[in-house]
Amino acid sequence: MAMTKKPVKGMKDILPEEMAIRDYAINLIKETYKGFGFTPIETPTMEHIGNLSNKEGGENEKLIFKVLKRGEKLNLAAASNENDLVDSGLRYDLTVPLCRYYSNNSEILPAPFKALQIGSVYRADRPQRGRFRQFTQCDIDILGDPTNLAEIELILATTTLLGKLEFSNFKVHINDRRFLRAMTAYAGFPEERTDIVFIILDKMDKIGWEGVKEELLKEGFSEESVNRYVGLFEKMGTGKEAIAYLAETLGDKLDPAAVRNLNEIIDAVDSLKTADFELAFDATLVRGMGYYTGTIFEIEMLDFGSACGGGGRYDELIGKFTGMKVPACGFSIGFERIITLLLEKGFKVPGAPEKKAYLIEKGSDAEKIREVLTQAQKERAEGKTVSVSMRNKNAKFQKEQLAKDGYTEIIEVYKK
Amino acid sequence: MAMTKKPVKGMKDILPEEMAIRDYAINLIKETYKGFGFTPIETPTMEHIGNLSNKEGGENEKLIFKVLKRGEKLNLAAASNENDLVDSGLRYDLTVPLCRYYSNNSEILPAPFKALQIGSVYRADRPQRGRFRQFTQCDIDILGDPTNLAEIELILATTTLLGKLEFSNFKVHINDRRFLRAMTAYAGFPEERTDIVFIILDKMDKIGWEGVKEELLKEGFSEESVNRYVGLFEKMGTGKEAIAYLAETLGDKLDPAAVRNLNEIIDAVDSLKTADFELAFDATLVRGMGYYTGTIFEIEMLDFGSACGGGGRYDELIGKFTGMKVPACGFSIGFERIITLLLEKGFKVPGAPEKKAYLIEKGSDAEKIREVLTQAQKERAEGKTVSVSMRNKNAKFQKEQLAKDGYTEIIEVYKK
Repeated sequence: MAMTKKPVKGMKDILPEEMAIRDYAINLIKETYKGFGFTPIETPTMEHIGNLSNKEGGENEKLIFKVLKRGEKLNLAAASNENDLVDSGLRYDLTVPLCRYYSNNSEILPAPFKALQIGSVYRADRPQRGRFRQFTQCDIDILGDPTNLAEIELILATTTLLGKLEFSNFKVHINDRRFLRAMTAYAGFPEERTDIVFIILDKMDKIGWEGVKEELLKEGFSEESVNRYVGLFEKMGTGKEAIAYLAETLGDKLDPAAVRNLNEIIDAVDSLKTADFELAFDATLVRGMGYYTGTIFEIEMLDFGSACGGGGRYDELIGKFTGMKVPACGFSIGFERIITLLLEKGFKVPGAPEKKAYLIEKGSDAEKIREVLTQAQKERAEGKTVSVSMRNKNAKFQKEQLAKDGYTEIIEVYKK
Repeated sequence: MAMTKKPVKGMKDILPEEMAIRDYAINLIKETYKGFGFTPIETPTMEHIGNLSNKEGGENEKLIFKVLKRGEKLNLAAASNENDLVDSGLRYDLTVPLCRYYSNNSEILPAPFKALQIGSVYRADRPQRGRFRQFTQCDIDILGDPTNLAEIELILATTTLLGKLEFSNFKVHINDRRFLRAMTAYAGFPEERTDIVFIILDKMDKIGWEGVKEELLKEGFSEESVNRYVGLFEKMGTGKEAIAYLAETLGDKLDPAAVRNLNEIIDAVDSLKTADFELAFDATLVRGMGYYTGTIFEIEMLDFGSACGGGGRYDELIGKFTGMKVPACGFSIGFERIITLLLEKGFKVPGAPEKKAYLIEKGSDAEKIREVLTQAQKERAEGKTVSVSMRNKNAKFQKEQLAKDGYTEIIEVYKK
């Protein structure tokens, strides 16, 4: 039977040109993060369906690719719903597998444990331009450190990496969930409805402050609370001044530890950073995942108008999953977004070896071929990339393809 | 709900120690194969279920992890068998995805196309010690070259890699399906039953020649044919002498092109090889997959008594799948087996950077921490791996874990 040529819906074949940049980026990520003491780990693609459906994955849980049971365990006749049919699923992020990995292996892992994971994740999302159902995530996490040394190291490592990838003019937005909560308390929003306030605040970029006000009022919040809330943002100013303003204004609604936390991170990163970026307090930063407990951050590429990574502190999550209370903080870069930006920028992989191709005329005898291969082996030993192939009838197309593939020297070898 | 700690059945968490060797091996594989002109590509983990169930995958097709349909497409009430429930599956090898990739993209790929694929594959096999349901395969393939330049380059690239991984004293067994067929024809076995002869011959290592004879007789083959067949193996001798003996004895049953093919490959590899190994004709080499059409080969590690890779020419397979007739030849190394051997050998990753850890006493102020980080950033910029953490109460265990992880210098920093 003839094969279906296209990949399955929403997935893609990675072509040589993109592959070269991906390989380069992955090597640089590993080298840079290892330099900060992060340890690469790998977890299986599949997870127990129960681990994936734990209610901490939010919307992603609706997008799981589920794997059918096999053999005797699959009983189609007795199955009343799809949960009877499946026992595992493809991971939709690297955080669930990290929590499972840590609880499975914590006795033999260093404490604190600084993990680096690069791997494919899968979401049965509606396919869109530039968004795929299989994509690479790249996470660093520090498990077991309750202090903001973790945040500082995560931000330094990530921004050093982006600098090495020749990104500049970016901004790291930083906030603390404790600021978000203190501000809603100050405004007088009922505590059990803060989530909806955050969802609306998160849209500020798109709908502006007038839109935020309107949506909050539509939700039935009092005009007084809404004005008090939005007023805070209007009056606070920017940067460390804004932090000071909120510390004073919010009074005992705001934990002084949260104030100290952000000031220390900003001071440390400002004096230690190696890349060209600004770390700035952003009281509107929300980050979607409900599991964040403290610091949150997000990278904005100013030249491209897009976020390309983020993270934060999630001190409760591992405990919820595993019963072991472990403070944790992580930073994830948008690997696919970064590759797209590098391709758009026409990024050239630096230090790529010289590429040389030999094309041997068809019908050449074994001795002639061996002669060419002897020369090729010598050049390979010197570190060159050398490809030896038979010369096609249509050598013009063949040579064009080689040139496109970066071969700068093409040598045609004739029978005699 | 508490999480299940263990990975799903038959899969494993990869711990830091193994990860370091895997990363090193993967980098070396990419670097070495790229040096021979192979181009890395990547295909999705999932394939159309129809592509995986094409009858060329042999036993592997019974081991597919199948992925449940989603949304409206899943109609449990109307499903009469499991094929109604699934639309895709996890790939069980890299050959099916390669064929699909090539047919999907051939117009923009070089011809011949020299592909390198490293990726996870999945088989719902009975778990066994050292065998997992998710494992990495590493394949190189040359598509579009009908000459044995392909075989020569594949063998040189693979053995160069093994040499760089410090393997020596290995043997590459080589045969040609045309020799296998000519020998059964000479013995007088009916052509339609050659497959069962090959299955029995493949067991020679385990059951010896007496066992082979016995099983062939049990299958109802004539004593004359069986003796004539086994007699060939007894009389042929070894190496190129054996090829010459068979060429003479089998007469017009054997295509002279097959004889020339093996002699040319052996001569070329003998004069061009860079690693310590022997390439030897082995008339008992069968290789399981039915799709091989010509040359076949397999690597045997003599010090470990195990095969750790193999491949061959499969000129018909891409045509069967895609309708495009494309000659092809590939070599796959047993990545997991190689990692196991490296771990057993106590292999040390060469050229790993110096690792230094700072442990800061708890309660140190922000300025003290920044001081340590300033020094760490300086050392990182010099290429060192530097980890900065807070010092645990039980610093003895912490230091032991760091030492195990390769940290040779551990500096404890006190509050004052």
